[in-house]
Amino acid sequence: MEKKTASNDFSGLYTDYYEFTMAQGYFLAGRKDETAVFDYFFRTNPYGGGFLVFAGLADLIESLQLFCYPEETLQFLSKQGFLPEFLDYLKNFRFQVTISSVREGEIVFPNEPLLRVEGTIIETQLIETMLLNIINFQSLIATKSYRINLVAGEKKFTDFGLRRAHGLGGIMASRATIIGGATSTSNVAAGFKYNIPVSGTMGHSWVQSFKDEITAFRKFAEFNPTNAVFLVDTYHTLKSGVPNAITVAKEMRREGKELAGIRLDSGDFSYLTKKSRQMLDDADLRGVRIFVSNQLNEYVIKSLIDQGAPIDGFGVGTDLVTGKPDAALDGVYKLSECNHQPCMKISESIEKMTLPGKKHLYRFYDNQGNFFRDGILLESENPDLCKNIHHPNYPEKLTPVGDLKRELIHQVVYKNGVTTNLLVSPFEINNFLQSRAAHLPEEHKRFIMPHIYKVGISANLLKLRDDLRNKVQRNTMM
Amino acid sequence: MEKKTASNDFSGLYTDYYEFTMAQGYFLAGRKDETAVFDYFFRTNPYGGGFLVFAGLADLIESLQLFCYPEETLQFLSKQGFLPEFLDYLKNFRFQVTISSVREGEIVFPNEPLLRVEGTIIETQLIETMLLNIINFQSLIATKSYRINLVAGEKKFTDFGLRRAHGLGGIMASRATIIGGATSTSNVAAGFKYNIPVSGTMGHSWVQSFKDEITAFRKFAEFNPTNAVFLVDTYHTLKSGVPNAITVAKEMRREGKELAGIRLDSGDFSYLTKKSRQMLDDADLRGVRIFVSNQLNEYVIKSLIDQGAPIDGFGVGTDLVTGKPDAALDGVYKLSECNHQPCMKISESIEKMTLPGKKHLYRFYDNQGNFFRDGILLESENPDLCKNIHHPNYPEKLTPVGDLKRELIHQVVYKNGVTTNLLVSPFEINNFLQSRAAHLPEEHKRFIMPHIYKVGISANLLKLRDDLRNKVQRNTMM
Repeated sequence: MEKKTASNDFSGLYTDYYEFTMAQGYFLAGRKDETAVFDYFFRTNPYGGGFLVFAGLADLIESLQLFCYPEETLQFLSKQGFLPEFLDYLKNFRFQVTISSVREGEIVFPNEPLLRVEGTIIETQLIETMLLNIINFQSLIATKSYRINLVAGEKKFTDFGLRRAHGLGGIMASRATIIGGATSTSNVAAGFKYNIPVSGTMGHSWVQSFKDEITAFRKFAEFNPTNAVFLVDTYHTLKSGVPNAITVAKEMRREGKELAGIRLDSGDFSYLTKKSRQMLDDADLRGVRIFVSNQLNEYVIKSLIDQGAPIDGFGVGTDLVTGKPDAALDGVYKLSECNHQPCMKISESIEKMTLPGKKHLYRFYDNQGNFFRDGILLESENPDLCKNIHHPNYPEKLTPVGDLKRELIHQVVYKNGVTTNLLVSPFEINNFLQSRAAHLPEEHKRFIMPHIYKVGISANLLKLRDDLRNKVQRNTMM
Repeated sequence: MEKKTASNDFSGLYTDYYEFTMAQGYFLAGRKDETAVFDYFFRTNPYGGGFLVFAGLADLIESLQLFCYPEETLQFLSKQGFLPEFLDYLKNFRFQVTISSVREGEIVFPNEPLLRVEGTIIETQLIETMLLNIINFQSLIATKSYRINLVAGEKKFTDFGLRRAHGLGGIMASRATIIGGATSTSNVAAGFKYNIPVSGTMGHSWVQSFKDEITAFRKFAEFNPTNAVFLVDTYHTLKSGVPNAITVAKEMRREGKELAGIRLDSGDFSYLTKKSRQMLDDADLRGVRIFVSNQLNEYVIKSLIDQGAPIDGFGVGTDLVTGKPDAALDGVYKLSECNHQPCMKISESIEKMTLPGKKHLYRFYDNQGNFFRDGILLESENPDLCKNIHHPNYPEKLTPVGDLKRELIHQVVYKNGVTTNLLVSPFEINNFLQSRAAHLPEEHKRFIMPHIYKVGISANLLKLRDDLRNKVQRNTMM
């Protein structure tokens, strides 16, 4: 068996083949020192919701700092037919790009330029796939996690998803769940890498491996005296698991210890947790908490809470770490400037037209300090002179913003190989998310047909886009 | 920024926290040398389909061979409160398990014991999460890919999914797409790791970065004379992209070269490919192939083929590498023997009961040599004496199998640190899949309400399960 693995020894290959084809093309065309600007944006809010939680930036920057071409990778590219002079260029390749971005944890909306990459045409091209891979995925999961946070409220939830995550993608998934509001993860590798708390209880196999359930509970309590949570559904939750848990909890109490909780992993959690709570309370075990896990998502959790199920915490797995049913965010990375000339993609459909030029993303606030509109302006224009922002496709629809408080919500985060303004810790990012979400009106947080948050463009950007489109259409359409 | 990454330096942590809690518990209980047997199986065919393509085994075995605990990981576990004597045990930990499994590429069905792990109770526990993570994911994607293969038939399809894949999980995803029938991948890292062909064309940014589309095509043809595929939808497919492609194709022909193809990435592919084909044919460019990409899946591809769209190949991305809409396979890993004593999980719901003991999985063939039934027998029983297999939940429903040709479809693949009977190359695995799928009756391949393939259990296994359940129920339910 080969010993190659998903590690940095081939980080420079973590990209699509066509990025190399194009990069070599630019190189052979003598364009390697030309510059380009690309924007990252997405087109559709995930889960039919009203917003996205932006995430993945710190991992992206870590990955681009490690991105390089060891000899073995150049040999591989050589076998694909890439030319020696181009491979020579790659030999000492390091990203020198400048990245401006909204912060991780920021609440963002479709078609906003969230992240901008500036550099040579080759490096801005080579970064594309990795950037999309990391930002699309972590944003998808952070958003899912925050949706669960929205319904769970003060109740805690934990990421239990590694066994259903997509291979090593599970590590980034766990980070993103913390960004969205999970309090810990079962994923030890993610705990190690990102310094996040790890947690867990016991599996059915622990219970099965002892001669009976009560022995399994006793032994577990013996080795985990301060934080024991018993899994009670191996044989029968109400007839066996809970009664045995109560017996052992009382034994523990006689030794001055308290059982931390029980976990239910099957059956109807509204019915079973009410019965279990009653049994625990009747046994004077009010402090024993009830955790549940099994195919949970934001809808199931909301329904359980609506029904008054006495649940203290949720272990959420599959849907959380895979972003089911969406499974992916549709983020794209599009060229907006080449050699300081703005450019754009026209496309068959007007919605897929891109916005040319270097842009700034502003957030405008209403009198209550809530998010009211976002506006995309040209970087070159004076925002004080921007009186209105326009609907991108129906420009006659406009919102006056001249009197509104505004905030530039992206900044340079990476330049000359150095990071600035970067939030790294997922808990720190969650704090930022919570502070931002407090200003997002509730109607945008609704799961069913949420109110659409409006994002407009300045008159200057509108004019640039339309002029450029007309010019391109004159040139290309006979 | 920390430099830790998703590499082998923490392979031993790629597991759930509770595996360590349980492992330490077994250790402290003096049970570290006790043995256990676990089965992997899944409960529901993905995508509402009639089968699963089993995949991921070679990666699992590679990962378990690399699984270890460098000092840094032990320090991390120590900070989590694990005890020095247990960490000492982990210091030289290496998997010594024996694994029996069906082959990668095998067509399998719900509730079949597909993979069995035997070893000490600690190692069989520690492997759980990684095993589920790898096998669930690759099987999900291989199945998706094979569904696309089923509708694409002789037409080729390529994995374009890395930008929407789940972080580093994209590498395994690409392997699984090849297993299912993709002919190449855009993912260069996967090409490098698994030795699979990489391919791609050009992006919109290439076209945008030149002063006009025709110059972009000319330059691309200059640098890629033998395999140029032009992306024709940057400005307008029929008014600009295809005419420019035709012009450059004729120029190429004058130099003795042929344009390989065009790619459409937006718009209606049935309409646009018919128009494009006509324009190419009218220009005497019958050899120029037409490729399409954009939000494809098995249903869209089937519909395009049904409408007679003249498409030569498909680039399939998001849905292929994420298994959308399922996003995960529900495979589980359950204890079936402990210290040579069969055991089982009873659960609230009869469907979640597990099958005790060490088992063999047989496939029975009909007279035409097609798959007819699968049967789960005890390893200890003589299969020649098994006259019937029974429905696991309605045992009075049975199928006589005594006269049928049968085949044991799993074997030992890993023992004493050595692999045997292992298919590693994804193309080799695809060959095996195709040879197997040829014997799967068509009614199980249907996408809508496929015929359910029946899996039964032997009378001996039935008796063992029922005896054990009765014994457990007598013991635990008052």
